[in-house]
Amino acid sequence: MEVYLDNAATTKVDQTVCDTVMEMMQKDYGNPSSLHTKGFEAEKAVRAAAHTIARCLKVDDKEIVFTSGGTESNNMALIGAAMANQRRGKHIITSSIEHASVYNPLIFLEEQGFEVTYLPVDKKGVVRPETLKKALRPDTILVSIMCVNNEIGTIEPLDQLGKIIKSCNPETLFHVDAIQGFGKRKIYPRKLGIDLLSVSGHKIYGPKGVGFLYIRDKVKVHPLILGGGQQQDRRSGTENVPGIAGLAKAAELAYTDFEEKQERMYKLRDRLIAGLSSIDGVVIHGYLSRPEGVGEFEGPAPHIVSAGFDDIRAEVLLHALEERGIYVSSGSACSSNHPAISGTLKAIGVERKYLDATLRFSLSQNTTEEEMDYCIEQLQALVPVLRKYTRGGKR
Amino acid sequence: MEVYLDNAATTKVDQTVCDTVMEMMQKDYGNPSSLHTKGFEAEKAVRAAAHTIARCLKVDDKEIVFTSGGTESNNMALIGAAMANQRRGKHIITSSIEHASVYNPLIFLEEQGFEVTYLPVDKKGVVRPETLKKALRPDTILVSIMCVNNEIGTIEPLDQLGKIIKSCNPETLFHVDAIQGFGKRKIYPRKLGIDLLSVSGHKIYGPKGVGFLYIRDKVKVHPLILGGGQQQDRRSGTENVPGIAGLAKAAELAYTDFEEKQERMYKLRDRLIAGLSSIDGVVIHGYLSRPEGVGEFEGPAPHIVSAGFDDIRAEVLLHALEERGIYVSSGSACSSNHPAISGTLKAIGVERKYLDATLRFSLSQNTTEEEMDYCIEQLQALVPVLRKYTRGGKR
Repeated sequence: MEVYLDNAATTKVDQTVCDTVMEMMQKDYGNPSSLHTKGFEAEKAVRAAAHTIARCLKVDDKEIVFTSGGTESNNMALIGAAMANQRRGKHIITSSIEHASVYNPLIFLEEQGFEVTYLPVDKKGVVRPETLKKALRPDTILVSIMCVNNEIGTIEPLDQLGKIIKSCNPETLFHVDAIQGFGKRKIYPRKLGIDLLSVSGHKIYGPKGVGFLYIRDKVKVHPLILGGGQQQDRRSGTENVPGIAGLAKAAELAYTDFEEKQERMYKLRDRLIAGLSSIDGVVIHGYLSRPEGVGEFEGPAPHIVSAGFDDIRAEVLLHALEERGIYVSSGSACSSNHPAISGTLKAIGVERKYLDATLRFSLSQNTTEEEMDYCIEQLQALVPVLRKYTRGGKR
Repeated sequence: MEVYLDNAATTKVDQTVCDTVMEMMQKDYGNPSSLHTKGFEAEKAVRAAAHTIARCLKVDDKEIVFTSGGTESNNMALIGAAMANQRRGKHIITSSIEHASVYNPLIFLEEQGFEVTYLPVDKKGVVRPETLKKALRPDTILVSIMCVNNEIGTIEPLDQLGKIIKSCNPETLFHVDAIQGFGKRKIYPRKLGIDLLSVSGHKIYGPKGVGFLYIRDKVKVHPLILGGGQQQDRRSGTENVPGIAGLAKAAELAYTDFEEKQERMYKLRDRLIAGLSSIDGVVIHGYLSRPEGVGEFEGPAPHIVSAGFDDIRAEVLLHALEERGIYVSSGSACSSNHPAISGTLKAIGVERKYLDATLRFSLSQNTTEEEMDYCIEQLQALVPVLRKYTRGGKR
């Protein structure tokens, strides 16, 4: 049995999306900048894609800029917004558990003279609204907080954070890295006070090499990539028409049967956690289960489980699972050399011994109960055996 | 009959390339950064692609960095190299007929305090080696010259230019925008003294949204997109594995039966030019035909013909041709507001009346004699008719 549980790293492309990409490559191969029908057809496909995505977010089509993926979206949002708005101030706020594609652009901005405040998070990985409130200053031009943490799956209280930012200063921009969140939460930027939102195709059963950045109307963002002036001069380069059409198809599919899929995945997540909890010496980082009656932006995302295993190195267990056809990820993203950034596990105060003994299991919408049970069985069999070796080696 | 003669704008993706992209999307869908087999297989595909491309250029695999396309490659080469080498000087040289994805990054660099010299070109659009020689200074850190001009198809003397740059100062970097040249000329960076080379997938029957930048070993280039540290920290973001594999397949195909394809296209180009010359009041910009016995980096590229039509607006003829299934481009790229940059036609001294009366015909390796003849017939029929209206309107 093959069980792919590394969907937070990347997802398998949906077959309908594959078909869309293929069709666009073969049929509508024109350059959207060309003045003839072939160009017009390609341009129409790009416009249709923007419309589909805008409808998902309840925003205007022209607020969608296509990029080469989540990393470029985050770079463009942060560097572009900071550069375009630095006259108003040079202070930026973020959390201490962001992805490398957020904190590395921020480190670059620090080198350019910007000041960045890294907010701590609580034991579950939540940015407390009151912590943000205290950090906001008159010269804060930008706040960047992720929607769903990629290591432990905690959802950030975007609704409360947005309210605090905008009530403090409506001009302070709110960027949300929704690369793990899009398709897991219905994110309506206008309702939430979000000005900039980054999304990646390959995390939502869409193609690699394509993503988008939502830029609220009238928000100034300098382009990151300069050239022929495509996409209203916001992102130059011939549009990746097949990728863009595939991304829109993936977004549309993500919003089809949304609630049912979430419900199914939460149940599978509970099943996996129950299985993990049946094994001695296993701890779950972040939320154990979805608390009753919590809002949209509280609790765990449906697709991520982070578990620490006493006395087993993550890599050893990862490869043992792999031999049984189960694909997971080691739980701790490599940390940077920046003193304020520690990686999520450290930031939430996980015991030191788990830092290299944690695996991330990330489900897809197509994960089945059978797959989950197979994974649990294998873990139940493997963990005591591997532990015997480790503990034996310690003597 | 449908005759697509806008291949300098974008090409139809080769079916083998489509199949490669599709296979990678469906089968090797892993994230190259993942530690398990699925990740390893994806990483292997990226490495294999780098190897294929490196072989075409006779360079090392590790000198290839994958990007989202030609525009990003040019941005990264220029901004990245300028920023990383500014201690040695802040002077950059380019020509006055570069693509917008070269001159817009250069304008950005001017705003950052760099000084840019825009070299004039001769009547054929050639950067004269002696002109470059005079412009080189001890503080020149970078020279950027295109391989093939996108508007008129003139090939630049890269061999002579490279020699001059390196004999003047081996540390001065030589960037070549080969977006129109790759697959049309065999470019060997080491032989030609090229340090940085930009290539795009969708101009060589490959996918849109992917390209590469050759960076000679030990050449310092700051990354443009920051994040997870992929591609040896030179270009972050999950690699677009299907796009990259498709790009490599396209490069491999470009180098298959290279000479035969070039020969065929030159013959078709001659055929088109003969047909155009049979019509009254038509001028060819740049080279009429390939001069006898010229070197690799002299004369016209095999795929581009730029023609001016007396008394006919380019757009009118473009749409009239389109109605007959013939797709071409208007000949003059939009010019910028920068005083030193005029667009190619102005720079080569084309008469004012042709500036908005020029079409670009760009052939593919699959263009046939029948298609060429059909295009010529339609032009022979259309041009006098359209001209009657214009000249009639003038009375």
